[in-house]
Amino acid sequence: MSETVERVRSYTFEEFVDRVKSFHGYEAIGVIIGGFMIDLAYSRLPENGLIDAVCETSKCLPDAVQLLTPCTLGNGWVRVINVGRFAVTLYDKRTGEGIRVFVDPAKIGAWPELEAWFFKLKTKKEQDPEDLLKEARRARADMCGLQAVKVADWVRKPRHHGRFVVCPVCKESYPADDGETCLACQGKLAIEGHDRSSEPYFVLLENL
Amino acid sequence: MSETVERVRSYTFEEFVDRVKSFHGYEAIGVIIGGFMIDLAYSRLPENGLIDAVCETSKCLPDAVQLLTPCTLGNGWVRVINVGRFAVTLYDKRTGEGIRVFVDPAKIGAWPELEAWFFKLKTKKEQDPEDLLKEARRARADMCGLQAVKVADWVRKPRHHGRFVVCPVCKESYPADDGETCLACQGKLAIEGHDRSSEPYFVLLENL
Repeated sequence: MSETVERVRSYTFEEFVDRVKSFHGYEAIGVIIGGFMIDLAYSRLPENGLIDAVCETSKCLPDAVQLLTPCTLGNGWVRVINVGRFAVTLYDKRTGEGIRVFVDPAKIGAWPELEAWFFKLKTKKEQDPEDLLKEARRARADMCGLQAVKVADWVRKPRHHGRFVVCPVCKESYPADDGETCLACQGKLAIEGHDRSSEPYFVLLENL
Repeated sequence: MSETVERVRSYTFEEFVDRVKSFHGYEAIGVIIGGFMIDLAYSRLPENGLIDAVCETSKCLPDAVQLLTPCTLGNGWVRVINVGRFAVTLYDKRTGEGIRVFVDPAKIGAWPELEAWFFKLKTKKEQDPEDLLKEARRARADMCGLQAVKVADWVRKPRHHGRFVVCPVCKESYPADDGETCLACQGKLAIEGHDRSSEPYFVLLENL
């Protein structure tokens, strides 16, 4: 990006901002910063290797991953473990070894616009989107920490590929491993890692 | 698609297949079928309105949503409630009213290649990807059921936008509402709706 993000997708900064607008709907600063974070992670990874990703938030960051790597939500190469930290790990899927990049609160103070955005010190109205974007472009991943990590096997292993059966309650198909009925009919619902088990997520108005 | 998917993104079938290859990495039949499902949902929605989406699986379907609607994982307009059903709901974010499209096991028998794929009756090797794609193109969303639904408020309301604070354990920032420390340091981890609370998701090798 800016000048790099080779290897997978190569954009100038302006091109990347355009791609963010087109995919994400607007120039979200979190996606822009995410782009620099991914750039930094790639710079520390070996040239070859199949790269998978983990995001620790579902906000913004996964879109940077989806724009700049082969990993998408639907192909399962990026997975979200939503603990609310602005951090992304790119790792070699054979070994689990990789690079974790996170926004470091100890470093972000050097970038007042980014700090205000990150810690929500200003309302949306008080923020100047242009100043923020300019500062982000100068900062790149300067406010980030970097770690060599090994991703756990349970994250690396492919999602379950067992048998599918028809649920006796809703008559739709579901993974047999989930139990006697599907998780929806069991009322076992979760959204972005937060359990919501007791509340149905839609009401049927009419079969069409 | 094929001939439609107006409104948001308009592709011919071939163009859509190319977009799937480029974004998802290969011509995944689940994304192709997902495209027809979204097409069908749009055809039943009012012309105007801000559309949000819910997927009931994280496999394939979310990529069709991300390719054909303004909804992405990172902007939060598509959310995954992973109950393992191949179903997608597009709904008006102001009212919650929308259309749910699901693969109906009672209808899929008319499409033997799709049935074999959907219920994993054949191994990957036994499947002929061209036959499958041809059949999918003929079937469109013919094997799907359609429901008018009202999406629950807890799914519609924006994800939490509270204060961010620094975690006393990991020193990274996290949403204050999550507790005294971040969810990672509490060991409260979930992935695609499945609780994994006891197992850390990475081991730190080295701070770089």
